[in-house]
Amino acid sequence: MRAIVAESAEQLVWRDVPDIQPDHGEILIKVAAAGLNRADLLQAAGHYPPPPGASQTLGMEVSGTVAALGGGTAELPIGQEVCALLAGGGYAEYAAVPAGQVMPIPPGISLVDAAGLPEVACTVWSNLVMTAHLAAGQVLLIHGGASGIGTHAIQVAKALGSRVAVTAGSAAKLELCRELGADIGINYSDEDFVDRIKHETDGAGADVILDIMGASYLDRNLDALAFDGQLVVIGMQGGVKGELNIGKLVGKRTRVIGTALRGRHIGGPMGKSAIARAVVDSVWPMLADGQVRPITGALFPIEQAGEAHRLLASGKVTGKVLLAV
Amino acid sequence: MRAIVAESAEQLVWRDVPDIQPDHGEILIKVAAAGLNRADLLQAAGHYPPPPGASQTLGMEVSGTVAALGGGTAELPIGQEVCALLAGGGYAEYAAVPAGQVMPIPPGISLVDAAGLPEVACTVWSNLVMTAHLAAGQVLLIHGGASGIGTHAIQVAKALGSRVAVTAGSAAKLELCRELGADIGINYSDEDFVDRIKHETDGAGADVILDIMGASYLDRNLDALAFDGQLVVIGMQGGVKGELNIGKLVGKRTRVIGTALRGRHIGGPMGKSAIARAVVDSVWPMLADGQVRPITGALFPIEQAGEAHRLLASGKVTGKVLLAV
Repeated sequence: MRAIVAESAEQLVWRDVPDIQPDHGEILIKVAAAGLNRADLLQAAGHYPPPPGASQTLGMEVSGTVAALGGGTAELPIGQEVCALLAGGGYAEYAAVPAGQVMPIPPGISLVDAAGLPEVACTVWSNLVMTAHLAAGQVLLIHGGASGIGTHAIQVAKALGSRVAVTAGSAAKLELCRELGADIGINYSDEDFVDRIKHETDGAGADVILDIMGASYLDRNLDALAFDGQLVVIGMQGGVKGELNIGKLVGKRTRVIGTALRGRHIGGPMGKSAIARAVVDSVWPMLADGQVRPITGALFPIEQAGEAHRLLASGKVTGKVLLAV
Repeated sequence: MRAIVAESAEQLVWRDVPDIQPDHGEILIKVAAAGLNRADLLQAAGHYPPPPGASQTLGMEVSGTVAALGGGTAELPIGQEVCALLAGGGYAEYAAVPAGQVMPIPPGISLVDAAGLPEVACTVWSNLVMTAHLAAGQVLLIHGGASGIGTHAIQVAKALGSRVAVTAGSAAKLELCRELGADIGINYSDEDFVDRIKHETDGAGADVILDIMGASYLDRNLDALAFDGQLVVIGMQGGVKGELNIGKLVGKRTRVIGTALRGRHIGGPMGKSAIARAVVDSVWPMLADGQVRPITGALFPIEQAGEAHRLLASGKVTGKVLLAV
């Protein structure tokens, strides 16, 4: 089969690699499209090795058709359209996936668009609902509202009845966020998000913050949190080491939660299978009835994976970047 | 009535002050004994103002007898022995307390010893159980194992079936911790707690850490946590501002939780009344059957409150310091 081989961060080459077979408990998917994630950029640059046992190939989500069953799984028909969350190996003609991470295509969603759903849906649901227990009426602040995660999180949080604030770096991005339901748009280039969120909440602050910046926003995120608020950090685009003011943390009884989907186990109450099941049960109906829609910002032929990586890294894209195989 | 007036951190004077009456929903307690907490030391030094509406007098927990009812409360008999969690005002002949924070004396516990239970029991239960959901078989690391909080937390965690590690600064303190049930004693003056906890857990680390140090232990606490572990910070004896390595936080999916009991509301699912009720339901039976016992390290006449404060500040005491009125 063919797959993308990362000869360097810049050199992503589509070429022949050894064929793969599904192990016991796995499903082999003939890949139709693969979604890009920032973790792929980091891995291509040598900064984020795949977890032990995972494919060394890039790609953490795909859509496609069932090509073979490894045994010990539900008897899915060969050729059935599915999408899946992977620990790696999605930038390829075929990907072998633990059966619990294989999901149906949500009703009404195209096979290609579905490739961009597993990571955002599992990340958003596992963090906002299964971890932070975001409730109707609570205020959620999403940094990077126009990103793949952001555009999905806005819609899911609105479907849950939350009040949603977002930050983004341009008027066009904020306009997209507003179209998707965001109540409060904050342009971080000309506005302080702490002041704005305090102003919009009568001084109370945000109940939950979904953060992709890490160190550079840490202190201001604490300032922006309400009493008993939760800061959920899923990215470190603003650096790894930040000063934590524990007085603020304790004084407002807040918590800082770091999470990452990729390293989770397959089983267990917060394992990937449980998350995928919860997403199919709760988010797929939101997609079926149009409350949530996939936001595909760009689609490249997989031979142009390098160009797709450069676009994602540039920050100039909104929604998901996908590769068609 | 008389109460302690803090003329300075060093000058705690027992003298006449205006009488108090219970408001609607409050119970007036004739104080038999009051417990000391580090928050009292901070408040006496001017660093920790009482929450809005609370008494300006020191003292966050008492035992005594019901002296009057403010109306709108359960009809407790005048003279009944009780203990209570206060937002302030315990270093006095009388204290007025919201009824939901008044608790019976646990069976078999003396009225004086009971003065040292409300803060430790409510702090430990609200953090370890209601917040961190500590489970049987999980590893708990308690910093300051010989403190008031520590000596109580060891016993409650053992009653819950956890494996308990403690740090303390002397062999005598560690011996007390072991008598109370601690499985692993770490002398922080000559041993690195990260190395030791890793060694004792086959490299896994602690599932929950109850921390009173704050900044100075922050990074090492993250190192000592297991995957999905929780660091619960309830004190800042090692400083307020520490460097948080978000890479470690995210990589192990851990969380840093800051909490403080004093500023909580009276009502609500995590309010003081709910916490006090949970403590009476769950911890008082542990005291009744001897699984948990109060550890009173020193008892002073209230006129010597200044001396009691100096003893607590010295770190030379184990268990609770109490004032008899």
